[in-house]
Amino acid sequence: MWQLYQFPLCPFSRKVRLLLAEKGVGYEPVRESPWLRRDEFLDMNPAGQTPVMIDTERGGMPLIDSAAICEYFEETVEKASMINGTAANRAEIRRLVAWFDTQFFREITAPLLEERMVKRLVHRMTPDAGMLREAMKAAVGHLDYIDYLLDHRTWLAGATMSLADLAAAAQISVADYLGGIDWKSHEQAKRWYVGMKSRPSFRPLLAERMEVISPPADYEKLDL
Amino acid sequence: MWQLYQFPLCPFSRKVRLLLAEKGVGYEPVRESPWLRRDEFLDMNPAGQTPVMIDTERGGMPLIDSAAICEYFEETVEKASMINGTAANRAEIRRLVAWFDTQFFREITAPLLEERMVKRLVHRMTPDAGMLREAMKAAVGHLDYIDYLLDHRTWLAGATMSLADLAAAAQISVADYLGGIDWKSHEQAKRWYVGMKSRPSFRPLLAERMEVISPPADYEKLDL
Repeated sequence: MWQLYQFPLCPFSRKVRLLLAEKGVGYEPVRESPWLRRDEFLDMNPAGQTPVMIDTERGGMPLIDSAAICEYFEETVEKASMINGTAANRAEIRRLVAWFDTQFFREITAPLLEERMVKRLVHRMTPDAGMLREAMKAAVGHLDYIDYLLDHRTWLAGATMSLADLAAAAQISVADYLGGIDWKSHEQAKRWYVGMKSRPSFRPLLAERMEVISPPADYEKLDL
Repeated sequence: MWQLYQFPLCPFSRKVRLLLAEKGVGYEPVRESPWLRRDEFLDMNPAGQTPVMIDTERGGMPLIDSAAICEYFEETVEKASMINGTAANRAEIRRLVAWFDTQFFREITAPLLEERMVKRLVHRMTPDAGMLREAMKAAVGHLDYIDYLLDHRTWLAGATMSLADLAAAAQISVADYLGGIDWKSHEQAKRWYVGMKSRPSFRPLLAERMEVISPPADYEKLDL
């Protein structure tokens, strides 16, 4: 049995969870709060970040780093390939995954998590309004980019759904939970995201709650 | 013919260049200074980062993001596989590549590039001594980790050389150029790095110079 160390608002764990659900791989979620820097967790992953996966039956080294974990399940589980097509298609998928994991995370998800989650749970401070405004402004730019991609393609990286869609939806869903997304004048991105939200792989994630912090009213809704 | 947009101290371009050299893939380096945020470059890569690769004969989309580029050449060029072994081995290689590309870069290479290169070339400022000290302290921790890995393995990710070794050596070589590496009491890491430096794939990188900034005297030396 696979165990997945994660917390409900970890966007990288969400990406992995979406992939596992699409592929039909079962796992037991184990709650880990990386900001507590628990010794046993650091021994497992010196980078101190979720997600980490452990095969409790077969043992072996833990799987660490969400990109490495996704590649592992792409290589070992044939069903629902999410890094598909020619080498050039696959490069485009991986470029966009890196885009959302790095740029979107750094500009939007990370500051929202810091201001609205870590400050509240750990430091008992109020969020910095300037930082929140910056993140929400950056989100508009990223939704513009998604609109642009969808002008040319059915899914973010091409003609079929891919890990790029899962990575983007994972980041957006956390930003949305934290009140950072305004869909106004982003009809295409919104339609795409409602499509992602309605997938069976996505519903369980949307039903989960982070302690203390509540999402906006339309967070789970399919008619935004 | 492949063109590779890069600058001499870009650690991610160095990783790609080492891979291309090991695989025997020819390319023409094109100088790009991402901090200038040139419009034509941003049109090509909205993330604004090097490396970017273009196939000038066959056209098609540019290859963007160093991890995606490395996977592309792993998939299309059989020679000198650098993401090799079982799925678990490959996950460990990718974990370590992400470790050096993310943790090592953030704690060491990025601050050294900012303080010793960007401040000098762009802002005409002197480096912040506190930031440099922090980066050099972090480097000691990372060399300890490399020593630890080499206690158990011949190469960083296992029994054979892999992309993990190229990624680590690429980051270290830039940090070393910028005076951030002290090999004292890191005999194992030093022996491994001298082995990397002596490879034909590495020699051309070490011979290049960044304008204005000179490396320390032993930067190219094989007897540290």
